[in-house]
Amino acid sequence: MFNQVAPHQTRNRIVATAMRLFWEKGYQSTSVADLLSAAGVNSGSLYHFFAGKQEVLLAVLDAYHKGIRPMLLEPAWAGTSDPIERVFALLLHYRSALVSTDYTYGCPIGSLALELHEPDPPVRALLAANFHAWRDAVRKCLVATRPRLPPKVDPTALAELVLATMEGAVMLARTHRSVAPLDACIKLLRDYFARLGAAPASPPRGRSKPKPRRRNGN
Amino acid sequence: MFNQVAPHQTRNRIVATAMRLFWEKGYQSTSVADLLSAAGVNSGSLYHFFAGKQEVLLAVLDAYHKGIRPMLLEPAWAGTSDPIERVFALLLHYRSALVSTDYTYGCPIGSLALELHEPDPPVRALLAANFHAWRDAVRKCLVATRPRLPPKVDPTALAELVLATMEGAVMLARTHRSVAPLDACIKLLRDYFARLGAAPASPPRGRSKPKPRRRNGN
Repeated sequence: MFNQVAPHQTRNRIVATAMRLFWEKGYQSTSVADLLSAAGVNSGSLYHFFAGKQEVLLAVLDAYHKGIRPMLLEPAWAGTSDPIERVFALLLHYRSALVSTDYTYGCPIGSLALELHEPDPPVRALLAANFHAWRDAVRKCLVATRPRLPPKVDPTALAELVLATMEGAVMLARTHRSVAPLDACIKLLRDYFARLGAAPASPPRGRSKPKPRRRNGN
Repeated sequence: MFNQVAPHQTRNRIVATAMRLFWEKGYQSTSVADLLSAAGVNSGSLYHFFAGKQEVLLAVLDAYHKGIRPMLLEPAWAGTSDPIERVFALLLHYRSALVSTDYTYGCPIGSLALELHEPDPPVRALLAANFHAWRDAVRKCLVATRPRLPPKVDPTALAELVLATMEGAVMLARTHRSVAPLDACIKLLRDYFARLGAAPASPPRGRSKPKPRRRNGN
C-alpha cells in the first residue's frame, strides 16, 4: 500500500514541479524533458495526465487560482486584521519573497502573462482569472472599509491600481535587483490611501517592513 | 553606388527586424533563422555584426534606450506642453498603441524584463537603463512643476510609481484584451495627482482620450 504511488500524487508532483520550473526558468525555457527529470516521472506518466506542456501550464494556472487563499493571502495576512493593512501586508509579502529568493521570485502570473505573447484562449482565461482573484481579494478589503473611502472612488478600480502597481514594481525590483522601486511605490500608495482618508499616513509601528530573513541556516 | 548596401544599413535592418520580432513573438521564440528570414540577410552578414542572438538583443535594448526621445517621448508629447499633462499623454500613448495593435504591443522593455528570468548582467544593465530613462523623463516633468507638489513627495519616487503603474496596467490590459484596467489606473493616478495639488481632477477638455485610429486604411 505504502509502496504504491497514487495517480493523483504523480499528477500533483508534475504540477508542483512545473510551478517551480516555470517561475525559475520561464515557460518557454522549460522543456518536457526538464519537467520529467525534475519531477522524477517518465513520459508515459506525464502524457497519461496531460496532452502536452500547455496542459501542464493550464494545471499550474488552475493551481495558482485555487490556491490564492492558502498559498498567498493566508500567509500574507497572518496577524493582520485591519482590511487596509491587509492590502499593504500583501504588497510586503512580495517584498519578502523578492528579498528571500535574491530577486528570483516575482509574481509568477505576471511573468507568465508577459512571457506568453499570444497565449491561447484557455491560457489567457486562466491568467485573467488569477488577476481577477487577486484584485477581488483587495477589493473586498476596500469594500470592508467603504465608509473610509470617498464615495467617488470605485473600490474595484482602486484594487486594480494596487494590482498594477504591485506587478510593475515587482518587475522593476527584479530588474534592478533592489527593493527600492517597490518601497517607493508602497510608500506613495500609502500616501494616496492616506489622502483618500482610508489609512494613516504611516504604517502601524513595527509593521512597515518585514524582518529580513536569514539567508543562511534557518 | 546605389546598388551597394552600406554595412550599417544591414546592421540597422537586423536590429529593426529583431525589435519587431521580439515584441511580436518574444525573445525566446525568435530564432536566428527567423531573424535572417525576416530581415532578408544571410547568416554571414548577421555574424559579421553580432556574436549571436544575445548581442542582437543588446543592440535592440541600446536602440530603445537611444531612441526614447524620438521614438516615444516626442510622438507622445506632440501638442502637449504642460509637464503634468505630458505624464498623462505618455500613458495615453501606450493606450493608443494597445488599441491600434489589438493588444499586441505593450511595453517591449517590460515584456523582455519578465521574459528573461535571469538575464546576463549586460542585458540586465540595459533593461535597467531603459527603465531609468523612462522614469527620468517623467521625473523631469515633475521637477518642472515642483512647486505644485507637496515638499515631502519625492519626484523620483512619484515617477517610479507612474512607471510601475504603466507597466502593470499594460500587462493587465494585454491579458484582459481591454483598456479598462489601464483607464482605471490612469483615472486614479490623476486623482492622486489632483490630491497632491499637481493637476486638475479632470483632464483638459478633449485630451482625456486620444481619438481611435482607423483600423482599415490610413
